[in-house]
This record gives sequence, structure tokens and C-alpha cells, in this order.
Amino acid sequence: MDSLAELKLAMRQFAQERDWEQFHSPKNLSMALAGETAELLDCFRWLTEKASYELDAQQQQAVQEELADVLLFTIRLADKLDIDLLSAAQQKIIKNAERYPTDKVKGQSKKYNQY
Amino acid sequence: MDSLAELKLAMRQFAQERDWEQFHSPKNLSMALAGETAELLDCFRWLTEKASYELDAQQQQAVQEELADVLLFTIRLADKLDIDLLSAAQQKIIKNAERYPTDKVKGQSKKYNQY
Amino acid sequence: MDSLAELKLAMRQFAQERDWEQFHSPKNLSMALAGETAELLDCFRWLTEKASYELDAQQQQAVQEELADVLLFTIRLADKLDIDLLSAAQQKIIKNAERYPTDKVKGQSKKYNQY
Amino acid sequence: MDSLAELKLAMRQFAQERDWEQFHSPKNLSMALAGETAELLDCFRWLTEKASYELDAQQQQAVQEELADVLLFTIRLADKLDIDLLSAAQQKIIKNAERYPTDKVKGQSKKYNQY
Repeated sequence: MDSLAELKLAMRQFAQERDWEQFHSPKNLSMALAGETAELLDCFRWLTEKASYELDAQQQQAVQEELADVLLFTIRLADKLDIDLLSAAQQKIIKNAERYPTDKVKGQSKKYNQY
Repeated sequence: MDSLAELKLAMRQFAQERDWEQFHSPKNLSMALAGETAELLDCFRWLTEKASYELDAQQQQAVQEELADVLLFTIRLADKLDIDLLSAAQQKIIKNAERYPTDKVKGQSKKYNQY
Repeated sequence: MDSLAELKLAMRQFAQERDWEQFHSPKNLSMALAGETAELLDCFRWLTEKASYELDAQQQQAVQEELADVLLFTIRLADKLDIDLLSAAQQKIIKNAERYPTDKVKGQSKKYNQY
Repeated sequence: MDSLAELKLAMRQFAQERDWEQFHSPKNLSMALAGETAELLDCFRWLTEKASYELDAQQQQAVQEELADVLLFTIRLADKLDIDLLSAAQQKIIKNAERYPTDKVKGQSKKYNQY
């Protein structure tokens, strides 16, 4: 079984064992996901871009755990809405490639609304 | 190859073909990730919890695309910091299970700082 | 002096006394602001809409402090970019009123991208 | 009347004229606020810190409008929960000053969880 599928089942079991399905509406999960993502921002907010490449062990561990939470809530939300996350991601890469053709964007500075 | 590994390579190629690696510092990617996550919030902000389970086709498509973007930027950020996302997620589930033992939390209302 | 102007000066002094101006680039402040806003989400993520009107004393205090932080970073970021926040808000209300005329939106359900 | 009090009344009238009070639960407003804040992130995500001080006219206008929206939703949420925003901000500055005494933090690099 694929890793995303495995994690989906693990998260489903996690919620069921704690009787937490009742809290996991898509609306609530979108809030939880945004909350976890913001904890990533907190890891980086006062670092220079250069320093953000050179995390110490404690920072690296913090980022790793926040990224894991973001992934887990992304998988949970997709599961609640019957979204096939792998297929959705593959389709989105194709769509993004059409939106930003290599010959048009290459060598240009990136705009704030670009992918 | 695993789906997360495949998407990682696809995202790496996507950035390289557009000469965008220069913009993809961990700091910047954390901002992009938070920005995409917030677009999910926008999908749900005025819906009731009940309505958030019953999206129409247009809403479902919008959520699917935003979730895909969140996943793709999560993968991209993990790649830039050499984080093994699958392993990080598996470890985090174990840690969360220890933090919220089923016999302690079951049947209690969920607190705002719970996972 | 107006309250927003007073708070602006207080925040300016706060940063200067701690030698923190160097960290307060507009980019960094936008991250700090988003981080504080997400802490508000954390207060509400597992509450029903109804419960979000009926906070207990501890929840109310938490929300009050997070809202204060959001306001303070909003003021700080505006100051760094020489934006007159009061005037900007007044102009935005006018613009929003033109975008959502009362006779068009009244009685309709609110869409996700509406103000 | 103070600027924050004026804007509070203007936002109240805005919602009432559109029959939008029904959507403005504290929970929903926290989502709207986070969504608007993330649009600020979008303005800065690919800019260097240095460039974030030197916005062109179009970028400056975009940031100004997003900051206005953040302020307006902050005021709206405070109003719905009967929070005196000015008093809350003044108290928070005092609390932050106690948490980060000038003689302790000055000259040190800022940590990610600092105010």
C-alpha cells in the first residue's frame, strides 16, 4: 500500500479510538491545518533566508514535527471529503505547468501571486 | 517508487525548469505553504460545519486544488531541508498517541490546544 | 492623540528599546502577524459556532490577548511601510460597500469569496 | 469618538445592512481574519527582506488594502465578543514588556518564539 494511503488509515484509526470523528468536520480540519501551518511560520519568522537553510538540531526537529502535522491534517481533510490526494497533486502539477510555461517565466523575477 | 518520493522529484524538476530554486528558501516556502492553507480557510469560512461536508461540485474542486497545493509545498519544503516526510509523519503519529492516550481523552470534549 | 497613533508610538519604542528594529522587516512582520492570527484559529477550531459566542473566562482572556497581538503587529507593519491605517480602513470600507451593494447581496447566502 | 470605536460602528452597520450578522460568528470571523492575513503573506512571499521595504506603488496599494481588511476583521471579532480592543492592546504591551525585559533581550539574537 502506498504511504499516503497508509497514513490515511492510521489517522482514521487515531480519530476513531479517541471518539474525535465528531470534531473532524472539514471546516474544523481546515482551521487545524491552518493553525499547524502557522507554527511553521513561527519557526522561520525572525530568521534570514540564509539562516533558514542552516537550522540547528532543535530548529530542524521543530520544523520536522510541524511539517508532519501539516501532512497529517492534509491527509485527514482529504479523507473526510473523499479526495484522492495523490491524483489531485498530479493533476495540479500539470495545471501549474500549463499556467507557468517554462519559456515564459524563466529568467524573470517571480511575482507575488505566482505559484 | 513511493508517491511522496515521486511528487518530490516532480516538484524539484518543476522548480529547476523555471529557475525558481533561488526563490525556494525554507523561509519563503513556509510563507507559500501558509498562503495556500489560508485559501482552504476561504473555502469554508462562511459554511456551517454541516455544509462543509456537503460541498457542491465547484466547491469540491476548489478544495481539491487547494489541498493539492498544500501537499506540494509541504513536500517541497521537506525536500529543501532533507526531511523524510513519511518517516516524520509516522513518528509524529506515535508521539501524538502518547500525548493523548485513548483511555484519558475518550468521551471528553476536545480542548482547543489538542491535536 | 488617536488610539492607533498612540499604539504605533508605543510599539516603536518597544522595538527600539530591545534593539529589535533589525528583525522587523515588513516581510518578517507579515509572518509574525499571520502566526498570531493562527493562534486565534486555535482558540476556535474545535468549538461549534454557537459555542464560539459563549466563551468561558479563560477562553475569553486567550482570545483577547491574541486579538491584541494581531492589532499590535498590524499597527507595527503599517508603521514600517508608512501606511496610515485609519485612512486605509476608511477607504476599504467604501470600496467594500461598492463591491457588495446592499440591494444585491441582501437575503442571499454568502459565498466563500465574499468579504 | 476614537478611531477604533468609529470603525467598529461602521463595520456593524456594514454587516447589518447586508444581513450578514448571521455569518459573523466569532469562529467564522477568526477564519476570515486568518484568510486576510494570509493575503499579506502572499504579497511578501517571494520578496527578499530588503525588497519588502521598497515596494512599488502597486505592491504598496495591495499591502495597504490587505492591512485594512485585517484591521477591520480584528475590530469586528472584538466587537462580537465585547472586547475593548484599545484596552486589550495596552494591557498586552505591558505584559509583553514584562516578558521581554530590555536588559535581558537587548543585543541577543531573537528566538523564533519571541514576540
